[in-house]
Amino acid sequence: MTKRYARVQTPDGRVHYGFLHLSRELQVLDAPPWLGGQATEQVLPPETYQLLAPCAPGKVVAVGKNYAKHAAEMGGSVPQEPLIFLKPPTTVIADGETILYPPQSQRVDYEGELALVIGDRVCCCTPEDARRKIWGYTIANDVTARDLQQLDKTWVRGKGFDSFCPLGPWIVREISPGATLQTFLNGSAEPIQCSTIDQMVFSPETLVSYISHIMTLLPGDVVLTGTPSGVGPMQVGDTVQVEVEGIGRLINPVGQRSIAAEN
Amino acid sequence: MTKRYARVQTPDGRVHYGFLHLSRELQVLDAPPWLGGQATEQVLPPETYQLLAPCAPGKVVAVGKNYAKHAAEMGGSVPQEPLIFLKPPTTVIADGETILYPPQSQRVDYEGELALVIGDRVCCCTPEDARRKIWGYTIANDVTARDLQQLDKTWVRGKGFDSFCPLGPWIVREISPGATLQTFLNGSAEPIQCSTIDQMVFSPETLVSYISHIMTLLPGDVVLTGTPSGVGPMQVGDTVQVEVEGIGRLINPVGQRSIAAEN
Repeated sequence: MTKRYARVQTPDGRVHYGFLHLSRELQVLDAPPWLGGQATEQVLPPETYQLLAPCAPGKVVAVGKNYAKHAAEMGGSVPQEPLIFLKPPTTVIADGETILYPPQSQRVDYEGELALVIGDRVCCCTPEDARRKIWGYTIANDVTARDLQQLDKTWVRGKGFDSFCPLGPWIVREISPGATLQTFLNGSAEPIQCSTIDQMVFSPETLVSYISHIMTLLPGDVVLTGTPSGVGPMQVGDTVQVEVEGIGRLINPVGQRSIAAEN
Repeated sequence: MTKRYARVQTPDGRVHYGFLHLSRELQVLDAPPWLGGQATEQVLPPETYQLLAPCAPGKVVAVGKNYAKHAAEMGGSVPQEPLIFLKPPTTVIADGETILYPPQSQRVDYEGELALVIGDRVCCCTPEDARRKIWGYTIANDVTARDLQQLDKTWVRGKGFDSFCPLGPWIVREISPGATLQTFLNGSAEPIQCSTIDQMVFSPETLVSYISHIMTLLPGDVVLTGTPSGVGPMQVGDTVQVEVEGIGRLINPVGQRSIAAEN
């Protein structure tokens, strides 16, 4: 079976990187694996840790309209160059954590996506070189307040609320080019999004190369590769599940964001 | 004199936070001052360190059209709500470092700005509470590839190239509401931008409150408060200087970004 790399927190508050045995025991590494982390003697039983997002990105770079059918459903055409945007790192949550519906929005959509985890410093690289800079693959949900995205030129508000980037549950090193990506709402057997990832307009390597000619990507940074057609709204109380063949399932409930000030 | 808080690197590669004596000796703190850093016994003579950007933000949140005259010169009106965008942390460079003109652009502009440094976790706070979440003030240049900003809906490319956020040289805790912000090119005595910061449409406190209802701000994060009128292009070989009364001067040369791949 493909190795599944995870990041976890133990009750003492410590964060560990490691890989999962079939038993869900975590073989602890002494550093993030993309920084050369080596296996330690520590193995954590499943009941002793909580899964975090599998990396802690300094940047989450996302791409719009990267599947032709999704571009069409949004009333646009495929862009000539990748259309990139940023999600703040504070959007990232783990598998199982709650997507928080903000009071400012009346319409929050799921967008199931394949996510790339960068393993190395990447500046101005070619698509050919980009392949070995992609350390692995995980699953993301590019949650979007559609009404606010349409109001604001820069998309930051629509895409940037806390909890708007579920990521995980773990990272695998390889993925089949024809892998299927599916999104499900509330346990239905019928996917609301279904595509193979080879339907992307710009490939993972092309995206990483393009972005690296603008901004240096750093180890642990994440690139979201766009969503296929079928985007739609979620309601408070829903559960959304994004599945990528060869990786697994990313499952998150939807709750209401408190409007009470925290100070 | 107002205390000036800086972040420096010593030749052994170590990074220190501290405050500057009039002699430019750095009194080293044992942590970032907004995290409660206390003075150590270490004092670094000026020839033994290099200034870095005064903080290492996880997020750089910027705001568009926050001075009425600048909104007008860009052919728009003042927005009803703050228009926020993100610059990736990889844009940040220190005082004295080179702004790199990317080969993709034919027009790179300076935008002198007051920058806020966040001292605390800020989520959903009121403008009244925001004041004490702003730990201090520094200077920024929101460098912008104007031609690419106009091409791309999301502004990420136009605002996001490496080196496009000079920040520093240091942080002060207080600033006069009527402080003057000026930008100069190539040592001219005549400013190309000149305004007082009380001409902002949305005050620092209002901006921090607004942003905190979307994304949680964390200690060391930076908010750029917008640029006054007078924006214009820089050429390779120019030197740009942004001055804010009560803080100091942020000076950066402009050079050509290499198009050679680094791999």
